[in-house]
Amino acid sequence: MDRQRIVRVGLLGFGTIGSSVYRLIQKEHDQILEGTGVDLQVGRVLEIDSSKIPADVPQDLVTSEFSQVVDDPSIDIVVEVIGGTDAAFIFLDTAMRKGKNVVTANKQLLASRGEALFTLARDQKRHLRFEAAVAGAIPVIKVMRESMIAAELHTVYGIVNGTTNYILSRMYNEEGDYAEILANAQELGYAEADPTADVGGADAAAKMAILASIAFHSRVTLGQVAYSGIENVTLADVRYAKELGFVVKLVGAARLIDDRVSVRVFPALLPVGHPLSAIYGSNNAVFLQGDAIGEIMLMGPGAGGVPTATAVVSDIVSIANTKSVGFLQSCSCYRRLGMYPAGEVESAFFIKVSVADQAGVLAQIASVFGEHSVSIANMIQKGRGDEAELVLITHPTKEKHFFAAIEKAKTLQCCKSEPMTLRVL
Amino acid sequence: MDRQRIVRVGLLGFGTIGSSVYRLIQKEHDQILEGTGVDLQVGRVLEIDSSKIPADVPQDLVTSEFSQVVDDPSIDIVVEVIGGTDAAFIFLDTAMRKGKNVVTANKQLLASRGEALFTLARDQKRHLRFEAAVAGAIPVIKVMRESMIAAELHTVYGIVNGTTNYILSRMYNEEGDYAEILANAQELGYAEADPTADVGGADAAAKMAILASIAFHSRVTLGQVAYSGIENVTLADVRYAKELGFVVKLVGAARLIDDRVSVRVFPALLPVGHPLSAIYGSNNAVFLQGDAIGEIMLMGPGAGGVPTATAVVSDIVSIANTKSVGFLQSCSCYRRLGMYPAGEVESAFFIKVSVADQAGVLAQIASVFGEHSVSIANMIQKGRGDEAELVLITHPTKEKHFFAAIEKAKTLQCCKSEPMTLRVL
Repeated sequence: MDRQRIVRVGLLGFGTIGSSVYRLIQKEHDQILEGTGVDLQVGRVLEIDSSKIPADVPQDLVTSEFSQVVDDPSIDIVVEVIGGTDAAFIFLDTAMRKGKNVVTANKQLLASRGEALFTLARDQKRHLRFEAAVAGAIPVIKVMRESMIAAELHTVYGIVNGTTNYILSRMYNEEGDYAEILANAQELGYAEADPTADVGGADAAAKMAILASIAFHSRVTLGQVAYSGIENVTLADVRYAKELGFVVKLVGAARLIDDRVSVRVFPALLPVGHPLSAIYGSNNAVFLQGDAIGEIMLMGPGAGGVPTATAVVSDIVSIANTKSVGFLQSCSCYRRLGMYPAGEVESAFFIKVSVADQAGVLAQIASVFGEHSVSIANMIQKGRGDEAELVLITHPTKEKHFFAAIEKAKTLQCCKSEPMTLRVL
Repeated sequence: MDRQRIVRVGLLGFGTIGSSVYRLIQKEHDQILEGTGVDLQVGRVLEIDSSKIPADVPQDLVTSEFSQVVDDPSIDIVVEVIGGTDAAFIFLDTAMRKGKNVVTANKQLLASRGEALFTLARDQKRHLRFEAAVAGAIPVIKVMRESMIAAELHTVYGIVNGTTNYILSRMYNEEGDYAEILANAQELGYAEADPTADVGGADAAAKMAILASIAFHSRVTLGQVAYSGIENVTLADVRYAKELGFVVKLVGAARLIDDRVSVRVFPALLPVGHPLSAIYGSNNAVFLQGDAIGEIMLMGPGAGGVPTATAVVSDIVSIANTKSVGFLQSCSCYRRLGMYPAGEVESAFFIKVSVADQAGVLAQIASVFGEHSVSIANMIQKGRGDEAELVLITHPTKEKHFFAAIEKAKTLQCCKSEPMTLRVL
């Protein structure tokens, strides 16, 4: 039948994702063939640790030498699921130079060396696909690159780190404070032994750099993404937010403002009723806004071997069926936009501060905010004596004005703690 | 530059969607060219009503003769946004026979004559794309066909009718009863003058037939979709549901059960916390479940000229960049699955019935349910005297058992009204 074509994959790595990709290709072979005409086969597996290879994987497929994969002329697509950055970069670089199309699930690699890889892909006219690198099984890269081609995207909000969303969801349900839930999440395998990259926001920042690059067609690197994490978010903050009708989430916010780009990651308050506020547990979601589409949201599992493998397999099939010269080969970053100055971005804020339990405190603080053109939308005053706390939500204002107001407020005698501030989306 | 290719579109119809497609192609021309290498041009516009054509559209583009579009060898892709079924069918049929790839936004056409069109597309090796026909700007067709190729989808729940979701969202907010909100929605343009197809469920059924066909690779026609609408859902029902922690939505439910297909549309109770329960206003959403992906949801505007046009344009660009022979040309319905018998489907139910205000009523009704293996999960008893009402939520049970129990319950003296029943998702 003329519609069938054999497509052979060289799989680099047989860990959690690699073995899931292998299994999925076996299991879905007939469906993929019938649905698309692609006769998908694993032609080579690169794995140094032979103990990872189960007995039912044909031994002659497995090699510990990269050259056996990349120099095999029958291999059409090289799939990198080995992790790390240096070796992975060399593998993908070499593979593209040798005429292979490539798929990777490696967000660290793309965030740190994406520029070189995307340029090479364009020059070599090779496909470089990476759906699995951001938000696991959620097809956000394909949707942005292909479906949103005429959508005029200007905003991408993402909940792109499952660990932090899991922790914050449980804090919202008042199941414990940050440290307790983190410890429990580590026991349950929802958080790494060293959770720094997740809870500190670096993981989300790497993903937002990729999403912003695709959405705005301009390369954003990890170094351009300002980020903060959830380590200092307390159960009390989450409770105050809840009382005011908000849910605290670690949010990535990428915006196109006056032809410049702003990409940041921060814990933020989302109003109950915002679609992102309902993203529970370790799920991920991406919320897109564009002039032509209004609002679109995609939600799903952000991690897991099998869900991630479905994204890798869809990339493979997509390459097999896309014209080899022409379509969105790299990240289609065809322009170079500057970064929008952080201080000029408009945000609303949540503020919590311990205050002296005396008359006129709110007036003093409100007066400082007023001098800096920051207006207050909501207020709660709690406790008595040494426990007195003031919680405020501001209207949106330029961040430089807000932070100037906070600096001034710190000098007030009535403010007895460093103010805790969180953005409000 | 060798990566650029001119792709010329013949646009059939210049109404709301057609004119938006035209504008979007003009506006996004340079971005599409830079991002994909496709130099997209409108080569012909078929429109009989010349008053619809604004002065800035070149007159030599416009024709009132279909042959001028389909016999123009420079036209690569024919886009049908003219509506109706008979003429639209002839246009697409002829276009594919004459070697054109085609895009349509016409769900009625696909639901009534999809089989013939998909078969023709396969035989002629033409692309037939229809992203805009279901859920407007939400790229659910592309995601299911391409990204979910290895996802093993077994369930598709959809909120695919904006009018009913708008009405039910406002009923949930207790802004009025069904008739009041419908009348207001008609005034505001959220509901048609004749809303029958929307509120009665037929519109959603046509869309679910298409979604089920793509998800399960087996052709489902409109005639195979059992549907009911929201006309009989009262404000009291919505309030009882809310009190029990549920939101009422018009839901399309397509499931693959034991290699057979069940596709239905009905008003249903969704637990608060279910991602679909948060879909507000006239938005649409599609919730996908598969063995390999867990759960994925897509949300966005289900209608509107410009959002729908973004889906049409993405189909055009996608065709321009997909290998012409091989990839998912038709609906990839490569198998023929039978329909799962309705009575065998397991569902939980909400029941509301007026009852005699006397002791032992619940015991009598519970006993009837028990005899039919229907167990009760929640109960509210309200009112006194002639106003007494009993509201029950059952555990999931085979629907034939449930309906047998309801028939029996109707014969009880203590049941003073026809029981109102709604499924619970």
